[in-house]
Amino acid sequence: MKTIGLIVAYDGTPFAGWQRQPDRPTIQGCLEEAVSKINQTPTEVRGASRTDAGVHAEYQIAAFDTERPYDTGRWRIALNATTPPEITVRCAFEAPAGFEPRFESRGKHYRYWLWQNAYLPPFLYHRAAHTRPLDIENMQKAAQYLIGEHDFSSFRAYDCQAKTPVRTITRLDISTPGGPYVFGCHDESALIQIDVEGSAFLKQMVRIIVGTLIEFGLGRNASEMLDVLNGRRRALAGRTAPADGLTLVRSYSSIDELVRISQ
Amino acid sequence: MKTIGLIVAYDGTPFAGWQRQPDRPTIQGCLEEAVSKINQTPTEVRGASRTDAGVHAEYQIAAFDTERPYDTGRWRIALNATTPPEITVRCAFEAPAGFEPRFESRGKHYRYWLWQNAYLPPFLYHRAAHTRPLDIENMQKAAQYLIGEHDFSSFRAYDCQAKTPVRTITRLDISTPGGPYVFGCHDESALIQIDVEGSAFLKQMVRIIVGTLIEFGLGRNASEMLDVLNGRRRALAGRTAPADGLTLVRSYSSIDELVRISQ
Repeated sequence: MKTIGLIVAYDGTPFAGWQRQPDRPTIQGCLEEAVSKINQTPTEVRGASRTDAGVHAEYQIAAFDTERPYDTGRWRIALNATTPPEITVRCAFEAPAGFEPRFESRGKHYRYWLWQNAYLPPFLYHRAAHTRPLDIENMQKAAQYLIGEHDFSSFRAYDCQAKTPVRTITRLDISTPGGPYVFGCHDESALIQIDVEGSAFLKQMVRIIVGTLIEFGLGRNASEMLDVLNGRRRALAGRTAPADGLTLVRSYSSIDELVRISQ
Repeated sequence: MKTIGLIVAYDGTPFAGWQRQPDRPTIQGCLEEAVSKINQTPTEVRGASRTDAGVHAEYQIAAFDTERPYDTGRWRIALNATTPPEITVRCAFEAPAGFEPRFESRGKHYRYWLWQNAYLPPFLYHRAAHTRPLDIENMQKAAQYLIGEHDFSSFRAYDCQAKTPVRTITRLDISTPGGPYVFGCHDESALIQIDVEGSAFLKQMVRIIVGTLIEFGLGRNASEMLDVLNGRRRALAGRTAPADGLTLVRSYSSIDELVRISQ
């Protein structure tokens, strides 16, 4: 038996999230359907991150087991020919037998896009959340309190099942990357990018952090972020930001050196 | 009677082009439905450019006549609340009575995106055409022959109705704009951007130019572009490039000074 690892990108818009569901299209479900067809036997596809409905990914790690002698290039081509165009297998590689992406995760990089302008370009529909103008400097000040190892109870979904609310955020950057070629002649400073990196995240943690940062962008005193964090109650934080502004940019794992994205 | 001008952006994916059709969704059709509802009378919406099915726009100019006393800000808000989210009215302004965007056009800027990589990011699905790796320098050399006033008979659709095939191209730039934040950790040089500006264009002219430039990117001798141009036969040029890589970035008009895009 071989284990094939996959690097997968997807536009989350048409899917009810990563995780398989009986009657709704999901990324795991589509991959399992494609793999099972090519594998000629029902096959589970394991993923590193269970992204929410509407969340996108540029670099999700997945794996499945097979008895077929196909080489990895053939798997990649066959899967891209079988999955919907909103899912792309960027790379297939031979992983250690039985490789479990979730347990071998070594950190994640999420990115959130906010558009602070009266006019959301259609190009960013389903890609960015629309907000009133925000005070970015104040958001940056407030964000500093979240970096490091903390009890993130205030920033987890009510139904989060994680055993411990302690997590480590290694990066929380808020920037306006600009870039005229993307949005035509639009206001370039309207795009706010929030980059979050950490070893692991609680359920909806990134979206709750973003929703809370928006409150600080609208004028809440930056030092109050400490009260939100220390209060350890979900009600103290802001609303959960919409899923469609969020992208899993990169999932790191113990076998990163096996991955070669072909160009 | 007042004439209201509109600056409109749209994601062309779900539409059968700009022009109204009896049984298919079009941008003109959606705008007319929205304007007619608010205007409480059937109302024609006139556009500057009849973009093809699947073509996007960042700055299309449109206009309609109304007896309603609503101010332009109210029109803008009401139209954005009524049209599908893939259409955005960026600005509404008072235009000269009877303003005809097509006749008042003062040039257009089109942009085409090509992705020269084995892997098309899902984010660019419906936004870029996928090609084999191209020789950009050779494309740039070939492009030079098209700049200026020429008979573009080789670069018009067979059913093009224009009275004269003579048009002027003022800009034809081929670049790799890069931009890491757009495509996550992907190969930045994979995106090729073709910017075309001119006073006016023949039917499918930009897409045929792009399809022809791709042939030069794949190795055709650059000087042969002159033969294609001088031969004045559609068969000499390349295939029509797919619609979904094309965006109308800007439509210029005689009344540009009336436009104030609100932020």
